[in-house]
Amino acid sequence: MHNYHDQEFFEKYSVRTDLALEAHQVVTEHQGPPLPGVKVSTVEKDKAVISRVIVENEVGARMIGKAPGRYSTIESPALREHNREMHEELARYLAEELDWFIQDTQLGPEEPILVVGLGNWNATPDALGPRVVQNLMVTRHLLGMTPPELRRGLRPVAAISPGVLGLTGIETGEIIMGVTERIGAKAVICIDALASRSVERLCSTIQISDTGIHPGAGVGNRRQAINQETLGIPVIAIGVPTVVHATTIVADAMDLLAGQRPQSAVEERAPQRTTFHVDPRTLMSTPSQQGIESTPPGLPHLSGPEKHQLIREVLAPYMGTMIVTPKEIDVLIDEVTDVVAGALNIVFHEGVDYDEVFQYLT
Amino acid sequence: MHNYHDQEFFEKYSVRTDLALEAHQVVTEHQGPPLPGVKVSTVEKDKAVISRVIVENEVGARMIGKAPGRYSTIESPALREHNREMHEELARYLAEELDWFIQDTQLGPEEPILVVGLGNWNATPDALGPRVVQNLMVTRHLLGMTPPELRRGLRPVAAISPGVLGLTGIETGEIIMGVTERIGAKAVICIDALASRSVERLCSTIQISDTGIHPGAGVGNRRQAINQETLGIPVIAIGVPTVVHATTIVADAMDLLAGQRPQSAVEERAPQRTTFHVDPRTLMSTPSQQGIESTPPGLPHLSGPEKHQLIREVLAPYMGTMIVTPKEIDVLIDEVTDVVAGALNIVFHEGVDYDEVFQYLT
Amino acid sequence: MHNYHDQEFFEKYSVRTDLALEAHQVVTEHQGPPLPGVKVSTVEKDKAVISRVIVENEVGARMIGKAPGRYSTIESPALREHNREMHEELARYLAEELDWFIQDTQLGPEEPILVVGLGNWNATPDALGPRVVQNLMVTRHLLGMTPPELRRGLRPVAAISPGVLGLTGIETGEIIMGVTERIGAKAVICIDALASRSVERLCSTIQISDTGIHPGAGVGNRRQAINQETLGIPVIAIGVPTVVHATTIVADAMDLLAGQRPQSAVEERAPQRTTFHVDPRTLMSTPSQQGIESTPPGLPHLSGPEKHQLIREVLAPYMGTMIVTPKEIDVLIDEVTDVVAGALNIVFHEGVDYDEVFQYLT
Amino acid sequence: MHNYHDQEFFEKYSVRTDLALEAHQVVTEHQGPPLPGVKVSTVEKDKAVISRVIVENEVGARMIGKAPGRYSTIESPALREHNREMHEELARYLAEELDWFIQDTQLGPEEPILVVGLGNWNATPDALGPRVVQNLMVTRHLLGMTPPELRRGLRPVAAISPGVLGLTGIETGEIIMGVTERIGAKAVICIDALASRSVERLCSTIQISDTGIHPGAGVGNRRQAINQETLGIPVIAIGVPTVVHATTIVADAMDLLAGQRPQSAVEERAPQRTTFHVDPRTLMSTPSQQGIESTPPGLPHLSGPEKHQLIREVLAPYMGTMIVTPKEIDVLIDEVTDVVAGALNIVFHEGVDYDEVFQYLT
Repeated sequence: MHNYHDQEFFEKYSVRTDLALEAHQVVTEHQGPPLPGVKVSTVEKDKAVISRVIVENEVGARMIGKAPGRYSTIESPALREHNREMHEELARYLAEELDWFIQDTQLGPEEPILVVGLGNWNATPDALGPRVVQNLMVTRHLLGMTPPELRRGLRPVAAISPGVLGLTGIETGEIIMGVTERIGAKAVICIDALASRSVERLCSTIQISDTGIHPGAGVGNRRQAINQETLGIPVIAIGVPTVVHATTIVADAMDLLAGQRPQSAVEERAPQRTTFHVDPRTLMSTPSQQGIESTPPGLPHLSGPEKHQLIREVLAPYMGTMIVTPKEIDVLIDEVTDVVAGALNIVFHEGVDYDEVFQYLT
Repeated sequence: MHNYHDQEFFEKYSVRTDLALEAHQVVTEHQGPPLPGVKVSTVEKDKAVISRVIVENEVGARMIGKAPGRYSTIESPALREHNREMHEELARYLAEELDWFIQDTQLGPEEPILVVGLGNWNATPDALGPRVVQNLMVTRHLLGMTPPELRRGLRPVAAISPGVLGLTGIETGEIIMGVTERIGAKAVICIDALASRSVERLCSTIQISDTGIHPGAGVGNRRQAINQETLGIPVIAIGVPTVVHATTIVADAMDLLAGQRPQSAVEERAPQRTTFHVDPRTLMSTPSQQGIESTPPGLPHLSGPEKHQLIREVLAPYMGTMIVTPKEIDVLIDEVTDVVAGALNIVFHEGVDYDEVFQYLT
Repeated sequence: MHNYHDQEFFEKYSVRTDLALEAHQVVTEHQGPPLPGVKVSTVEKDKAVISRVIVENEVGARMIGKAPGRYSTIESPALREHNREMHEELARYLAEELDWFIQDTQLGPEEPILVVGLGNWNATPDALGPRVVQNLMVTRHLLGMTPPELRRGLRPVAAISPGVLGLTGIETGEIIMGVTERIGAKAVICIDALASRSVERLCSTIQISDTGIHPGAGVGNRRQAINQETLGIPVIAIGVPTVVHATTIVADAMDLLAGQRPQSAVEERAPQRTTFHVDPRTLMSTPSQQGIESTPPGLPHLSGPEKHQLIREVLAPYMGTMIVTPKEIDVLIDEVTDVVAGALNIVFHEGVDYDEVFQYLT
Repeated sequence: MHNYHDQEFFEKYSVRTDLALEAHQVVTEHQGPPLPGVKVSTVEKDKAVISRVIVENEVGARMIGKAPGRYSTIESPALREHNREMHEELARYLAEELDWFIQDTQLGPEEPILVVGLGNWNATPDALGPRVVQNLMVTRHLLGMTPPELRRGLRPVAAISPGVLGLTGIETGEIIMGVTERIGAKAVICIDALASRSVERLCSTIQISDTGIHPGAGVGNRRQAINQETLGIPVIAIGVPTVVHATTIVADAMDLLAGQRPQSAVEERAPQRTTFHVDPRTLMSTPSQQGIESTPPGLPHLSGPEKHQLIREVLAPYMGTMIVTPKEIDVLIDEVTDVVAGALNIVFHEGVDYDEVFQYLT
């Protein structure tokens, strides 16, 4: 179901992840940086770590199992807190990252954008997209009636929540194609809930990328890609992990049980992360780590791919569609919605008083 | 905002209504039946009154202010009750009426239909359409993979809830056009919440018609027609009144206060309605009625059009966007959703065990 | 159903209102200020008008139909806007007014308070109380385990949403009595959605009072008083108008139609309100006003009490349980919830970092 | 946090379960039936298996780790299906089991019952209780006004959803005590969402018991017992598993991976369960089972208690508050709500036309 980059990567490392940053970490733990064809830069903010990964070519793509393109990740446990000031700051960070992507599309300031809230309104962990759309300020219908000289540089923004295949009978990609063609959108921004590899990332990480949505990614079951190739216009995807698959958590748990690396060794490898309570290391133990650790007596000694295959085969019948999610997911989704909708409103309408917009345009 | 039939009718009778049955009653109260170009037949069931109005030509259309086509109305106070057996019966009545319309479209049994839930998921009285879609059994994605000889006569059904202009920035009609083209739908069924003239009709009346959705009709603010002319395929609209505009209730109240006709006179005129607690007569007093009644001392003597214009001009600034709705609207919408979704499931999948469908097709 | 003050007032002025400020305006328009036993003071803030009414004794109580006690009203159209900064400012105003009431109860800083969210979670316009409770920071369970010397002056706050009679079978007052006794609460703060006389006040006015909740007031159907007399501890009520009864809107509409006072006259009478788009004058026309205005030809000339009685008798069968509410009520309730919950959190936990509270106490 | 029976049982078998049936199965797999002081009988219905466990005395209680009393379990995968007829049948089964418990309390037919919906309305997997209350027909407020000779044997039913400690600051038990005292309820029926040991049981099993709610049981974090001892009146608990704790799923997964017993052996031991797709055997492998199986090379050989302790210690920091739940939990909760509310309405109002009740009593 995944694309060929993903598949090759999985066969090599037995890890599936929607996050380029996680994939990059897996590989560098194996063979050490730098990776050819992949550029990574990280900035630490007061309450967030922002990393940009650029996959420059096919070499890099095969290396980390992600299509060539740009990926930006904002990691912040503060996303989970109910703290308005913090959310406003995170929304500004996200807006800046989005702006990096939008600049790159070379969209004119008045060209129309379609925001797409992927997912199922009625399944809480999958409802992020529709809830963001619900809180978005849209302008396309106001600007449509306005002569260009009065638009004052405003961008027409439209938004839809196309629903999920099981409730519509229509591939999400088909609906988006139909609508973008009809309204002449020049770029698409998709919001999606992702399945993560790690409980620590749930509602604490946001990834933006320009490589679109892959079939089989996300919480839902999309079978069709939503990207520049299929739509003919730039697609920016904003994804937030909200669930972990039950089989994933078992595999990670077994790695954890199979032996933790000594803390000191960890500190040396990833010193920049010490201020951060989400520690991806503990959640990403990989075959090489298992190899170098002494296995506690009686615990398994399978190597990664074998182990993961075993887990999947034995557990799938029992845990197939089970998801792992925080008890308080209903509240967490609202917090993240706030930040993502806030960032989009800043990006689209920065410097414009929305009341003023309405005053002139309605 | 309304089409020209509506406008001419309004100027003559000062009544606006989305229901052809109400329009027909207004005119016959003025000039008595029969009306040229309009055929009406009524059937009384145990708990419902079902009326079919056929507007045969332009003469009839101008007469009652409704486009030429078919209109069917199911009136039943039992729609408001929380009674499963009753709802199943009403769903069967609605399914029969829908079948009358679908037969007329000459759709093949395997041609795809798109169901459209109009309205705003987050505004209770406007949420009927999206809630029906939520409860619908869709099959298009299952059948798409199945060779024709295994489809066993099943019809591909898809469904969307396109949202409202204020939240999407896109005319609902544009989204529907984009999607029908993309998926090759051969007919559209729209579900919509209507603004009614009468509190008694709220959640107790269902109208089906083949003339589509008119701009300005419904609870929302659509500006574009959704009909065979704009989509190029048959459009069947299912509408249920869920709100009354505040200015309408004032106008009706003033009519009521201005003098009721004696009950006896009423009984003679509309004997077939005596078993029915929803009495449209009391809610549709028209200029002629006011004329023939003695006006109580001190109460107004304005004729219809003047009165309505006065009401609108004076009250609009205070009551512009106010709606009148039953206290228990949240529950009532759920009851009606049950019946409409049930009817569609019967129409689309009659005689098919849905579990069986899934067994063969997934 | 109302208390005797209300009843006497109604018979005299044919106006029912839950707001002391409205009642005061009705009487002063009749006989001019000052009223014996009633003190009123008004402060204009940047975006709000705050009025305090003190009914000093039985004379004042009979005069304006409100029990002796304190009433504070915050009027601000900004309550309806989606504007965080504005909401934070309004929350601070509300917190200050609440503080005035709490000071008066002479509660010790560590004495426990019970917040009660009245109303029905599932009927949007009645859901204000439960939604505020949902967003409240409660501390009682944390403090219960903490030795007094470590409580650092924190007040134990508990909160319940007791539901409505039709869904529980229990008078709300009984539940509150049972819980306050059991937990030893020393004061109760009730949040309630009110039925207003005016569409302009919907979600734009907040009243605080120390006279409790009267039977028959609010959107629901309470039959039992919730006040210091019945509970034995101080009761502070926070009420926000969210609906207008359909019969009220008709009566007001008829007053409006019966003739507006010339604008100039209005300006002279209530100059302090000119900055304010909610103009209670237009929504409160009283018999005396009708008397002094010339009645337009053909419009009614009934005096207030007769008119209102007529309206009720004729319309009740048709409009009995109908409510008038803004189309966008779902959104407006969320905005007001924000402000009220914010104000309570400020009042209860001012100067305390909530994270810090949790750190020390859990 | 659990009671002493639970604790002793856990130390012996390293299994925690809220279901008496599961506990019984664990012990009999160890030492074979019959167990002294425990009686079990099972009836297979068309689409459900109904088991009654009676713990007769302290001997039995220590044996299976459950307080002396009655336990009834309805197991049916059909609970998860959206099928009205099936749900009506399951509701009748549940009503019969409830009746067995109510008979035992020797309640008079007119003595009042309080139904309590435990859990958090806003956290989907914990919302079962409040949703059942929402759909319940309550009569206490109607009967309160009716003279006994007109009550026609109707039972006064009241219902509350007290909320959860984190949102109210009040132990649920305190609220229930306060309300039962105040209204003079003679029995309490609690509805609760449980944490299960098995993903297969999620929304497919209902347990009724007369031993009340234990601290620490359920999805929430109750610290106080709700039972006959604390309330002074009979307490019947209806529990439905809706989540599995993340640490539980890991332990079960490791058992699964450590080697399945041969199918044939299983068939012999539990032949009565062959018609049933929920197979608790696969989800309940215990230390003794691991002992008798050959361990696959490289997989762990820890015995139960050690293993579970290890899992908890290592995983708790990473998976502490994570829950495992089906993707479609929002829909499943609605299905179960339907059945439980339906059963209660049958038990309380069997043979009474509810419309008729209202007609006479309101």
